Amino acid sequence: MRSLLLIVLVSSAFCQIMSEEVVEKWNFFEIALEGPSKGNPFMDVELTAVFSQSDKSVRVRGFYDGDGIYKIRFMPKYEGPWQYVTHSNHDNLHGKSGGFTCIPPGRENHGPVNVQNGFHFAHADGTPYYPVGTTIYALTQMSDEIIDQSIETLKNSPFNKLRLLVFPKQWNYFINHDPPDFPFLGSKEEGWDFTRFNPSYFQRLDRTISSLHDLGIQVDLILFHGYDWGKWGFDKMPLDTDLKYLQYLLARVSAYQNIWWSMANEYEILGDHTTEVWEELAQYVVDHDPYDHLRSIHNASTFYDHSKPWITHLSVQNHKTSRIKEWREKYHKPVIVDECSYEGDIEYSWGDITGEEMVNRFWKGYTSGGYVTHGEVFMNVDTLMFWAEGGNLVGESPSRIAFLKKIMEEGPAGGIDPLPYEPSWNRKFKAGVDPDYFLHYFGEGQPKQRTVSLPEDGVFSIEVIDAWNMTINQLPGTYSGIVKVPLPGTPYIGLRIKRVKK
Amino acid sequence: MRSLLLIVLVSSAFCQIMSEEVVEKWNFFEIALEGPSKGNPFMDVELTAVFSQSDKSVRVRGFYDGDGIYKIRFMPKYEGPWQYVTHSNHDNLHGKSGGFTCIPPGRENHGPVNVQNGFHFAHADGTPYYPVGTTIYALTQMSDEIIDQSIETLKNSPFNKLRLLVFPKQWNYFINHDPPDFPFLGSKEEGWDFTRFNPSYFQRLDRTISSLHDLGIQVDLILFHGYDWGKWGFDKMPLDTDLKYLQYLLARVSAYQNIWWSMANEYEILGDHTTEVWEELAQYVVDHDPYDHLRSIHNASTFYDHSKPWITHLSVQNHKTSRIKEWREKYHKPVIVDECSYEGDIEYSWGDITGEEMVNRFWKGYTSGGYVTHGEVFMNVDTLMFWAEGGNLVGESPSRIAFLKKIMEEGPAGGIDPLPYEPSWNRKFKAGVDPDYFLHYFGEGQPKQRTVSLPEDGVFSIEVIDAWNMTINQLPGTYSGIVKVPLPGTPYIGLRIKRVKK
Repeated sequence: MRSLLLIVLVSSAFCQIMSEEVVEKWNFFEIALEGPSKGNPFMDVELTAVFSQSDKSVRVRGFYDGDGIYKIRFMPKYEGPWQYVTHSNHDNLHGKSGGFTCIPPGRENHGPVNVQNGFHFAHADGTPYYPVGTTIYALTQMSDEIIDQSIETLKNSPFNKLRLLVFPKQWNYFINHDPPDFPFLGSKEEGWDFTRFNPSYFQRLDRTISSLHDLGIQVDLILFHGYDWGKWGFDKMPLDTDLKYLQYLLARVSAYQNIWWSMANEYEILGDHTTEVWEELAQYVVDHDPYDHLRSIHNASTFYDHSKPWITHLSVQNHKTSRIKEWREKYHKPVIVDECSYEGDIEYSWGDITGEEMVNRFWKGYTSGGYVTHGEVFMNVDTLMFWAEGGNLVGESPSRIAFLKKIMEEGPAGGIDPLPYEPSWNRKFKAGVDPDYFLHYFGEGQPKQRTVSLPEDGVFSIEVIDAWNMTINQLPGTYSGIVKVPLPGTPYIGLRIKRVKK
Repeated sequence: MRSLLLIVLVSSAFCQIMSEEVVEKWNFFEIALEGPSKGNPFMDVELTAVFSQSDKSVRVRGFYDGDGIYKIRFMPKYEGPWQYVTHSNHDNLHGKSGGFTCIPPGRENHGPVNVQNGFHFAHADGTPYYPVGTTIYALTQMSDEIIDQSIETLKNSPFNKLRLLVFPKQWNYFINHDPPDFPFLGSKEEGWDFTRFNPSYFQRLDRTISSLHDLGIQVDLILFHGYDWGKWGFDKMPLDTDLKYLQYLLARVSAYQNIWWSMANEYEILGDHTTEVWEELAQYVVDHDPYDHLRSIHNASTFYDHSKPWITHLSVQNHKTSRIKEWREKYHKPVIVDECSYEGDIEYSWGDITGEEMVNRFWKGYTSGGYVTHGEVFMNVDTLMFWAEGGNLVGESPSRIAFLKKIMEEGPAGGIDPLPYEPSWNRKFKAGVDPDYFLHYFGEGQPKQRTVSLPEDGVFSIEVIDAWNMTINQLPGTYSGIVKVPLPGTPYIGLRIKRVKK
């Protein structure tokens, strides 16, 4: 995969790009060039490359990675030979040309994730992608050791999406340490030099994105956030600095296939950022991401206007995941509830729900036609706060979320959509692909029975699912028409009903 | 109490009312007179009595109780001698006079319940009344044996309010038998004679109300409901029949101090009853209840306009009892959530919640400044469906509701009102009487700690309450200012914080 290529590049002399080099489709090709290190390379040097293949050409921007090294990254979407030529206002960087061959993707390489079927997602090769996310906001603010430990935790978890901040975070007693270094040169005390980025800060981000890519985990990268609370001031940068930062960041990381752009977490908290500012920043991303990665903007309490065309899907904070149905109908876009409160035991409602309730909200969200994101905040002082710092997962929900993920994967490939519940006043959940697949969910209720009405013209299997105890019991025989299904009389029960023949 | 007086009256010759008879304040005095039994006594005979004491006089209507007996019931609100004289269009019933002495109420007799402090309730003697209700809709539709058994169950329960239908109920497989007899003569098949009431049907109601009175249980009497579903047709009577029925019912039962008028359960279900009809029926109750008992109208999904002056308090159906705060602010009246789903295991969301969730909704409602009503629907075929039929309680919530009731009784006499939670986005609950009494509730969350901010100028005790396990643990010492309170990290925890000195 890409990481192998990087090693080759790093170990070879710069500019030694050979045309026999190969890159898998959707992985990235990187050019490293030696250039000026004096003056302010971040501001003074313009560097782009045009990659072309027959009638297709893509212009991408390079970036300064420190120590006199400039890099250009490119993710090819088409197989076959590609050529490139660089353009720069500096001679050493101008007119460099070369090429590579884009080969078919490997078995685990499915390409970037896009919207599919209106409310769902799939990789570029058509492989369905069911977002089962978690949250380690400040992962790149941690030591390499903790980053590695956290990646190992994710490797052994069901999670295939991670919400990650670019800028450092502090909050209360939960996370209040500085990162190993900062995104800009300078310091809080003496002032940041917003014209000079700190390559090592972003290299740590690169490594993290790359490691997550190797695990097939999408990075829901949060470009701005307000969890600065006056500590560093990265939430109050002027608009032109915001744009310069976006230019630099997009040049660095757009070529990673597993990037999603989250314009902000709890956008309202960044009080200086008006709608006009958000629109300008979002438009910059639209215009300068050559790969059209997914884009969203996440709320604290009030939705941003999700009907804006640049928003590909809703990234919601709301504790009621059953409302996904309503938001789908309003915005006609996929909905991911990225914060519905986290499993944990802190003193705030956003982080004190039980494992049962976390799982319950996942199921309600999924059977309402959307997806839900996990987080974990336990006060045990011997461990890190996973939701911000990573480390180990200690909660009870991840294994149950893995169980749900398996059900998602065994379901209709194109995703399931909410279906009306009968009677309508029964606050229960049903989703599926009528008339072949139905997933019922009864939430925290404890019914002893459920009457289901199946098409008379079909033959169906019925399985009783215990979402908490992770059991699936198939009822003997097959069914059609009105069926009284006996249930265990405990909470977190669902039914999976599949057509076995016409 | 009243029942003793009734025995005296029944055993004495009719019309032998002696002036030395005594009635406790708020109990009722009953006159029984012999009159015509031919023709249609319900429609042909007018009978009223005027009760007077110095400058006060109250006109009350009598009713025909079958077998040639007419009765007039009167609840005195003032102590001392009362005189009465009857008026009738029939000679035998006209001009009868007599009197009684109203003596001070007995120790257990606190008088009718009224609104107090805007959002709460108290008996006429000032004794606080905290509604802790349950539901046996069709109790008077059951055999005398089951009625007695149910009363015995209530006697051993915390419940002090009962939602009770006048007309019989049927629904699905839950309750589908006829009552022992019907409110009108005739039959469904041959047609009801809406001009002739059936005294025995209403005598069963009398006995039930009287038994509940003896237990100190308020009867939230539901005058109309739609749970007829075409079986008997009592939900589709013409307006003049509705009014005649109200005339008869009010004449019979208004004098019971423990009556509350619930105009309807799920009023929307009675599709023939427009707002104009409800207003006319409600106005009839206002005009013909001499005692001004509490009045409400209960919704299925859409609130009736609770700003109508005749509505004394909100009787709500909604599963989210935390919304009480919002409804208090909107209507400035007490709020009782009379249906927030019931503890049970049927297949509908209105009757499948766990005991934990029933108790949770009680606590959320109480700490939102209102009150919540219980119900129980377990599918165990060996038992009755308590919510409609009575019998025994088998659920886990009643003992916890008793525990909460004790906390209510130990709290500020005038009730507690919701207080803002800090920070406001923390979806937790706090109510009390600032700055002396605070009741926090953390719901289904499982915090390990809660930071509370107490007035610096006071000294407070702090108790950690486990609403489910029914424990109250007082923290050692006293507190003021900012306090980090350690909590068990389990759901259904609250804090009771009381000022111990200034």
